[in-house]
Amino acid sequence: MKTKTYHKHSNAILTVGSLAFDTIDTPAGKAEKVLGGSVNYFSVAASFYSPVQVIGVVGEDFPKSHLEWLSQRGIETDGIDFAAGKTFHWVGSYDKNLNEAKTLSTFLNVFEHFKPKLKDHHRKTPYVFLANIDPVLQQSVLDQVKEPELVACDSMNFWITGKPDEVKKTLRRVDVLSINEGEAYLLSGQKNLVRAAEHIRDMGPSTVIIKRGEYGAVLFTGTGIFIAPAFPVDSVIDPTGAGDSFAGAMMGYLAEAGASRKMAKSDPEQWDQLMRKAVLSGCVMASFTVEDFSLHRLMRLEAPELVSRQKALMKMLHVG
Amino acid sequence: MKTKTYHKHSNAILTVGSLAFDTIDTPAGKAEKVLGGSVNYFSVAASFYSPVQVIGVVGEDFPKSHLEWLSQRGIETDGIDFAAGKTFHWVGSYDKNLNEAKTLSTFLNVFEHFKPKLKDHHRKTPYVFLANIDPVLQQSVLDQVKEPELVACDSMNFWITGKPDEVKKTLRRVDVLSINEGEAYLLSGQKNLVRAAEHIRDMGPSTVIIKRGEYGAVLFTGTGIFIAPAFPVDSVIDPTGAGDSFAGAMMGYLAEAGASRKMAKSDPEQWDQLMRKAVLSGCVMASFTVEDFSLHRLMRLEAPELVSRQKALMKMLHVG
Repeated sequence: MKTKTYHKHSNAILTVGSLAFDTIDTPAGKAEKVLGGSVNYFSVAASFYSPVQVIGVVGEDFPKSHLEWLSQRGIETDGIDFAAGKTFHWVGSYDKNLNEAKTLSTFLNVFEHFKPKLKDHHRKTPYVFLANIDPVLQQSVLDQVKEPELVACDSMNFWITGKPDEVKKTLRRVDVLSINEGEAYLLSGQKNLVRAAEHIRDMGPSTVIIKRGEYGAVLFTGTGIFIAPAFPVDSVIDPTGAGDSFAGAMMGYLAEAGASRKMAKSDPEQWDQLMRKAVLSGCVMASFTVEDFSLHRLMRLEAPELVSRQKALMKMLHVG
Repeated sequence: MKTKTYHKHSNAILTVGSLAFDTIDTPAGKAEKVLGGSVNYFSVAASFYSPVQVIGVVGEDFPKSHLEWLSQRGIETDGIDFAAGKTFHWVGSYDKNLNEAKTLSTFLNVFEHFKPKLKDHHRKTPYVFLANIDPVLQQSVLDQVKEPELVACDSMNFWITGKPDEVKKTLRRVDVLSINEGEAYLLSGQKNLVRAAEHIRDMGPSTVIIKRGEYGAVLFTGTGIFIAPAFPVDSVIDPTGAGDSFAGAMMGYLAEAGASRKMAKSDPEQWDQLMRKAVLSGCVMASFTVEDFSLHRLMRLEAPELVSRQKALMKMLHVG
């Protein structure tokens, strides 16, 4: 029962979201029923930095071998339920504009009745990441955890449009929000990047990261603005999971560095500097994710490659 | 005849392109027959750094007061012909996607028979910028100048599609090309940023800057890649002239710093570092241009504002 001690790690992350099958069509090819889902990408990315505990649900058709592989990476899968029925299945496509996914079908399956239930040993995990799920479920996770050091979350247009009040309730309780550019405009009602970020910061999260696909991400901490470039890859095969693995590396970095809500308040300069590095880690991780379908590239990613690309990206924003 | 000594300045720039009237429709409003044209934007931007000599043509309807204003800024207008007829007039619009202009009408007028003719004192100007005009005319300027220190140019889809061979002939003779992202893909036949830039570098210019509108610009020197962010402005009124004023500040910065083709070859590291700063200057200048219609914002821009925004942008890409 080695995994039961995860929450005792001062840098452990608890995350809740989807594990899924994805069927994807991109200009580079097609992938049929491959492994996907927000916490799948998130946890693999975060595990390069910190131990992770996943809360989620899969159907009887989900490969046990994948959960075993996650465990071997230091990802605790005790919180993943096997429910009667089929695993959540997303069917989507990208046209030439690889920055935007088009959902063709969503088969919620076992995810339809998903109610995140934390076990005792999950409740004291210091870092919490709420992936993009129903904001009511996001809040139910926050109701179950005990004084986390830092809470971050993601959201999407589906919830912003469908449950705007619940999204706002969640936002009041989180420290860091990562969100796509178009969704930031939708959520804030603003059409300008800076104004959108300030508007969202007023809703709760003191730190906002606006993701811009192949153009990188922009960080707003209140202390400063940091414009992080995407790493320019030779070839983008499939953008699915880029945002989730961005968030995973970012959160993993923050947890490893011992960042906290307290630090954000007491030392905003240090927080701002840490967040910049965390966002860059996210950009680098996302750049690997898009190089292949599913988790394939992340599954064969080695630490030295990661470090080498981080250094390369640092050089691409350096001015002497 | 103070202006006749411009070419003797070791940092003087000679530029050729259009002076025009623009009629523009943007989501922020409409401007009727306002001052525009590539060398108009270019020269005003460059004049913050270095003396400029303009080669161009206007019609009888062009306001002499504007040329006088340019002169007062240190921009030599001896090379601007007054021809019988009307000034070049561009009618365009932008929809929500402010990154792309749509041409509604083009009245070439006196520009139709424009043949750049350099006066003797223009021929020895050390820095040359060929704005976006017929590549045959760009070459005729290069035929008339004597061993410039550095040659840069711009182009656009109209010429890349219409006179691809002539564009390529021009490119063989220039050191630095600045070009829009979509045009870089068109010119190179590549769909990927890095591959497009490498392809274009093989065509001649050892340094390529790919402009990405509100997302900034990416520099490729052969030594390194620099991803320069756009300065995030509160409100974009009109993107017209952003690319030309970007090029103006960039070239002005390079001329002021004494950059040269020779340096690019003998000290690629120094060249790369200089180019990074030049590109940032371009990003900052463009961010002012878009804050109002026509040259209005540039005309009231003061050096301290420029310096202050440069510092602010530097902070937005700094990682401690």
